[in-house]
Amino acid sequence: MQVIVNAATSVDGKLSTRRREQVAISGPADFDRVDALRADSDAVMVGVGTVLADDPSLTVDDPERIDARTGRGDPPQPARVIVDSRLRTPTDATVYDDAAETVFLVSEAATDEAVADARTRDAVVISAGDDRVDLSAALDRLETHGIEQLMVEGGGELVFSLFDAGLVDELSVFVGSMVIGGRDAPTLADGDGFVETFPDLRLGDVERIDDGVLLRYTVV
Amino acid sequence: MQVIVNAATSVDGKLSTRRREQVAISGPADFDRVDALRADSDAVMVGVGTVLADDPSLTVDDPERIDARTGRGDPPQPARVIVDSRLRTPTDATVYDDAAETVFLVSEAATDEAVADARTRDAVVISAGDDRVDLSAALDRLETHGIEQLMVEGGGELVFSLFDAGLVDELSVFVGSMVIGGRDAPTLADGDGFVETFPDLRLGDVERIDDGVLLRYTVV
Ligand SMILES: NC(=O)c1ccc[n+]([C@@H]2O[C@H](COP(=O)([O-])OP(=O)(O)OC[C@H]3O[C@@H](n4cnc5c(N)ncnc54)[C@H](OP(=O)(O)O)[C@@H]3O)[C@@H](O)[C@H]2O)c1
Ligand SMILES: NC(=O)c1ccc[n+]([C@@H]2O[C@H](COP(=O)([O-])OP(=O)(O)OC[C@H]3O[C@@H](n4cnc5c(N)ncnc54)[C@H](OP(=O)(O)O)[C@@H]3O)[C@@H](O)[C@H]2O)c1
Repeated sequence: MQVIVNAATSVDGKLSTRRREQVAISGPADFDRVDALRADSDAVMVGVGTVLADDPSLTVDDPERIDARTGRGDPPQPARVIVDSRLRTPTDATVYDDAAETVFLVSEAATDEAVADARTRDAVVISAGDDRVDLSAALDRLETHGIEQLMVEGGGELVFSLFDAGLVDELSVFVGSMVIGGRDAPTLADGDGFVETFPDLRLGDVERIDDGVLLRYTVV
Repeated sequence: MQVIVNAATSVDGKLSTRRREQVAISGPADFDRVDALRADSDAVMVGVGTVLADDPSLTVDDPERIDARTGRGDPPQPARVIVDSRLRTPTDATVYDDAAETVFLVSEAATDEAVADARTRDAVVISAGDDRVDLSAALDRLETHGIEQLMVEGGGELVFSLFDAGLVDELSVFVGSMVIGGRDAPTLADGDGFVETFPDLRLGDVERIDDGVLLRYTVV
C-alpha cells in the first residue's frame, strides 16, 4: 500500500487555529491539486478530530475526474476512512451521506451497539487495537479490502501516529503565506512527538502555487 | 528599524522537540547564511526561553565578516538582545561572556537587585512594560541605542509576540527535511495564536539549501 499524507499549513506548521476552526490556508490551484490526488486514490483518510472540527465530505469534485474513475472500473468516489476508536463520529456527519463508501477504523473500545449502528448506516467497520486504533494492523485490513493508494488528509494526531508507525511513503505540504501561531493550535504532526530519532524525508519538487509553496517529500 | 525573524523548523513547524533540546535541523550552508545575516545586523535577539534551552552565543563566527564590520566602523560583533522580563538568565550563561555587548529587555517585574547585578556584569538593561516586556516600547529604545537592523532568532513565544505587535518586517525560515512532531514541542510562532485575522506574508525567494528549503517572506 502507498500512503500519501497531504495537508495545508501556515508557515509555522499549523493546520488551523487554537479554536480548531478551519482556516483558508490554500487557494483554488491547491484545491484542484487536492481534488486530483483524491481522484487518484482508492481511499481518503482522516482522524475523528478532523471530522468533529470540519465535518468534511472528502469527495472528488470534478465530474471529469469522477468519470475517469468509473471509466477505469473504479467506484465514482474513493472510500472515506475515518480513524475513530470509539465511533465518536456524529450520525449526522457528512461522511455518513451516500456520496461515497465510508469505512471506520475502530478499536475494542467501540461498543457493540455503536458498531452495529454504524453498520445499519451502511458504513464498513474494521476493528484493530485495544484502546486506540492499531494503524499498522488496520492498514493491512484496508489493503485486503482493495485499497492500494491511501491519501491521508490529517489531522496532526493521526499524521504523527502514522509517521511513528513508519507507515508514510510520501508527504506533500502546501505552505500558505500566513502565520497562525498558538502553542495549542494543531500542527501537521502532533502526538507525543519524536525526541531522539526523527523520520528522515527527502525533499522532492518545490513548486510555487497560489500564494504559497508546495513541498513534496518522500520518506527515506 | 528593520526586524528580520530567522529560524529553522521541521516540516511540521517545530523549533525543537518537546524536551526543548536543540535538534540539528539545518546544515553548513544554512549556518553560513545565518552567520552572514548576524554580521549584517546591529543586534541579534532571542527570548529567555531560548537562552535557558540552548545557551547560545549569538555571535558571528567568520573572521572576515568580523573584519568587515570593524572596517565599516561597527563593533566586531552585533549586540545580543535578550527578552527577559524578570532577568531569569543564569549568570553563567554564554551571553554574559565578553564576546559582544549584551542588552537585556526587562519589565517592571525585574527586581532592582537583579537589574543592578546584570549591570555590574557589563550588561545594558532596558525596562519596558509592567509584567512581560512591552516589545514595541523596547524596540523604540533599542533604536535610540543605535540599533537599525535587528535579527530575531526565536523562540516561538517571542516570535508570536513580535507578529502580534506588528513589529516584523521579514521572515526567513529554513525548513529541514524532517518531522519532529509533538503537540507540546515549540513551534515557529506559539503564544496565544491568532484566531480571526492573520499576519499576511508575501512569499519572496524560495531556495533549496542543504537538504531543505529556505522560504523568505516580507510582512505585508
Ligand atoms: N489544514 C489541513 O490540511 C487540515 C487537514 C485536516 C485537519 N485539519 C485540522 O486539524 C484539526 C484536527 O486534528 P487533530 O489532530 O485534532 O485530529 P485528527 O488527527 O483528525 O484525529 C485524532 C483522533 O483520531 C483518533 N485516533 C484513533 N486512533 C488513533 C491513533 N492510533 N493515532 C492518532 N489518533 C487516533 C483519536 O480519537 P479517539 O481516541 O476518540 O479515536 C484522536 O484524537 C482540526 O482543527 C482540523 O481543522 C487541518
Ligand atoms: N530552530 C530554531 O531556529 C530555534 C531558534 C530559537 C529557539 N529555538 C528553540 O525554541 C525553544 C524556546 O522557545 P520559547 O518559545 O520557549 O522561548 P522564547 O521565545 O525564546 O522566550 C520566551 C520568553 O521570553 C520572555 N518574554 C518576555 N516578554 C515577552 C513577550 N512580550 N512576548 C513573549 N515572550 C516574552 C518570557 O519569559 P519571562 O516572562 O520570564 O520574561 C517568555 O517565556 C527552545 O526549545 C529552543 O531550542 C529554536
